[in-house]
Amino acid sequence: MTAVPDSLADPTTAEGVLERCSQLDGWSSRPDCLERIYLTPEHAGANRLTAAWMQQAGLRTWQDAAGNICGRREGRTDGLPALLLGSHLDTVPDAGSFDGMLGVVMAIAVAQRLGRRIDAGELAPLPFALEVIGFSDEEGARFGKALLGSSAVAGVWDDEWWDLRDRHGTTLLEAFDAFGLEPRHVRTAARRPEELVGYLEAHIEQGPYLEARDEALGYVTTIAGARRFRLTILGEARHAGGTPYPRRKDALVGASEAIVEIEQLARASECIATVGRIEVSPGAVNVIAGRADFSLDLRAATDTERDEMWELMLAAIRRQCDARGLRLEVSETHCAPAAPCAPWLQEAVVHGIATTGNTDPLGLWSRAGHDAMVMAEVTEIGMLFLRCDDGISHHPDEAVLPEDVAVGIDAFEAAVLRVAEAYEARS
Amino acid sequence: MTAVPDSLADPTTAEGVLERCSQLDGWSSRPDCLERIYLTPEHAGANRLTAAWMQQAGLRTWQDAAGNICGRREGRTDGLPALLLGSHLDTVPDAGSFDGMLGVVMAIAVAQRLGRRIDAGELAPLPFALEVIGFSDEEGARFGKALLGSSAVAGVWDDEWWDLRDRHGTTLLEAFDAFGLEPRHVRTAARRPEELVGYLEAHIEQGPYLEARDEALGYVTTIAGARRFRLTILGEARHAGGTPYPRRKDALVGASEAIVEIEQLARASECIATVGRIEVSPGAVNVIAGRADFSLDLRAATDTERDEMWELMLAAIRRQCDARGLRLEVSETHCAPAAPCAPWLQEAVVHGIATTGNTDPLGLWSRAGHDAMVMAEVTEIGMLFLRCDDGISHHPDEAVLPEDVAVGIDAFEAAVLRVAEAYEARS
Repeated sequence: MTAVPDSLADPTTAEGVLERCSQLDGWSSRPDCLERIYLTPEHAGANRLTAAWMQQAGLRTWQDAAGNICGRREGRTDGLPALLLGSHLDTVPDAGSFDGMLGVVMAIAVAQRLGRRIDAGELAPLPFALEVIGFSDEEGARFGKALLGSSAVAGVWDDEWWDLRDRHGTTLLEAFDAFGLEPRHVRTAARRPEELVGYLEAHIEQGPYLEARDEALGYVTTIAGARRFRLTILGEARHAGGTPYPRRKDALVGASEAIVEIEQLARASECIATVGRIEVSPGAVNVIAGRADFSLDLRAATDTERDEMWELMLAAIRRQCDARGLRLEVSETHCAPAAPCAPWLQEAVVHGIATTGNTDPLGLWSRAGHDAMVMAEVTEIGMLFLRCDDGISHHPDEAVLPEDVAVGIDAFEAAVLRVAEAYEARS
Repeated sequence: MTAVPDSLADPTTAEGVLERCSQLDGWSSRPDCLERIYLTPEHAGANRLTAAWMQQAGLRTWQDAAGNICGRREGRTDGLPALLLGSHLDTVPDAGSFDGMLGVVMAIAVAQRLGRRIDAGELAPLPFALEVIGFSDEEGARFGKALLGSSAVAGVWDDEWWDLRDRHGTTLLEAFDAFGLEPRHVRTAARRPEELVGYLEAHIEQGPYLEARDEALGYVTTIAGARRFRLTILGEARHAGGTPYPRRKDALVGASEAIVEIEQLARASECIATVGRIEVSPGAVNVIAGRADFSLDLRAATDTERDEMWELMLAAIRRQCDARGLRLEVSETHCAPAAPCAPWLQEAVVHGIATTGNTDPLGLWSRAGHDAMVMAEVTEIGMLFLRCDDGISHHPDEAVLPEDVAVGIDAFEAAVLRVAEAYEARS
């Protein structure tokens, strides 16, 4: 595989950006589909390719201590705080070509355009350094834990993660070593708040709202933090034939009622609730289920809405279980706070979109998690969403329109310049 | 373990019968609970013990070619057709002491009582031979296929069963061999209709109806034949966060609606429907279920009621799936016809119960399957049900009252005499 394929199209155009996304597809662990997971040869290959593109865009590059690939162009003077533009280069198994990668390649295109204009004297040097980052792990497909790359950069790395194992039994520690990274140096990847101006990310929407409005671009208001629960309903495993209805304590009927109720409550609100897993025991065709375990993933624009919805759901499920003589047990398995986008960065993105002709763009809360969520721990964040076909993501059918990518690059570039203006006005 | 423990109580009394049930518990493959499965040393031990009891009751005994233990007392003359009394000696894992065994031990008690009365000249010899049979496999706990013992006797053995494997990979054929049975002789266990007068079985109810009426005994009108289905609901596996409700095709919500609907329809009828298994795919916390597979076990007093209920359920589930854009696939995995008890044998059991003081006993359809169901293929059947505690069965908590067993033996004995009267009247 060539390290840097010759680019046929100008890499600062939509055509060039899409060509690069397609070139990244070559770094897959599977011949039949795209899968690029953390700390693998494909990860290294994608990093090398991306670094070469960054260099071509005039950026100084390095791979940080967590395997993220980074590029930097100094601002007006050397050593200024940096505006970070980024997204991730890893994928889910059997992935599409745009989730993450599009944002990285667009960021390089914007850095290259701005560098060209500055070098041509058409534009004054920026009041901050401009950095592009390709995060090494956002999906968590290898070790279960997501957002490892951005966690290192945000300085929230947890040493407990070293013992996480992939499905072959390799620990994260061993994988670092095999990749040529020094685990004990991982904290050097962390950035300090005072080094950073903010973080901007372009990403496909992974939802259908922009398409429904027939608009190419939108800005993100906040990234929802999911709460996840494990619910257990306990009934009585009894003979399927011999036990009449008044005597039944059927845990699966109880769980089914709960799942239907969860959907009804969420549908009637602005929340999104998903039950993606269920297991019943004993699980025999002719035995009433004595136990049902199921998951709940709950998201909303704000933590308050989400938490109020959970209380509503819990009360409803309790009532249903009580009515059937079933016991309910609940444990929370995950809780992430919502990450709001900074108003001034939202305004910059809105301004960027406006320069492309849409002066009233759609503001969306992101139902999916993003690197920006973790970056919010260390700096202010903003996000630009691009319409994608039918909201499909995490699937080879993921698709974007070239004309959307074209206005996306324009808007992203304009947003960076707006950040520069606002940053200067604030300083 | 002693082959024939000394009996402390008269084996024709409730005390003696219950003591024998407890002695059979000794033949278990597990020290902590009762498990006696087909073609094991425990099966052989229980057969030897039962044969010894049969001999003590004056029966000539043999083990047939399918491992059933049999005993016979000739009637008025040698070689007459036989009235069979029986049930099974195998158990489910972690079983109670009465499901099956009680019926065998009660049958021996009845044979012994009648023999004693005939030998004492108090009663004329019967117009048929009296046989007792302890079936070797009813539960199907070892090879998945239930009712193997009675299938051999009823002459409906299927040579495809030889390849069935237990969880250790042993085939039925190999297990026959290891037990000392000749597989090629299995058909010699089959009885011809003309050799048989009928088949009577005493069994615990495995349901709560008798207890609810505060009655010790009931008669069975028919044994329900279950139909079993595998239902598959196909939706779309998509991002849990990014997919809003109007775009969702959630297979698990579809399955949950179906399960709730199935219960509602069955509850409003005389049918019993159970969904005991469900599996979803991909089964991830943050992915909408794209596929849900679940089982349905459906029983009713008559095949017509059952089949009409299935049509109702299927139509309702189809409507629900259509409304959600889900696809439904259905396959039938099992279908057994209901086995009605012969009116004259029902009448004999009713008469038997009446002699114990209950002149208006409860007629029940059996929601559970029984050896009698298969015996109906070769002869006419009748069943006597005994109240059991809280309807519990297939569980170590299975319990019967000694006073119920006492009237049960009396009723069973009187029923046999009534069959003799009716048989003579018919001949």
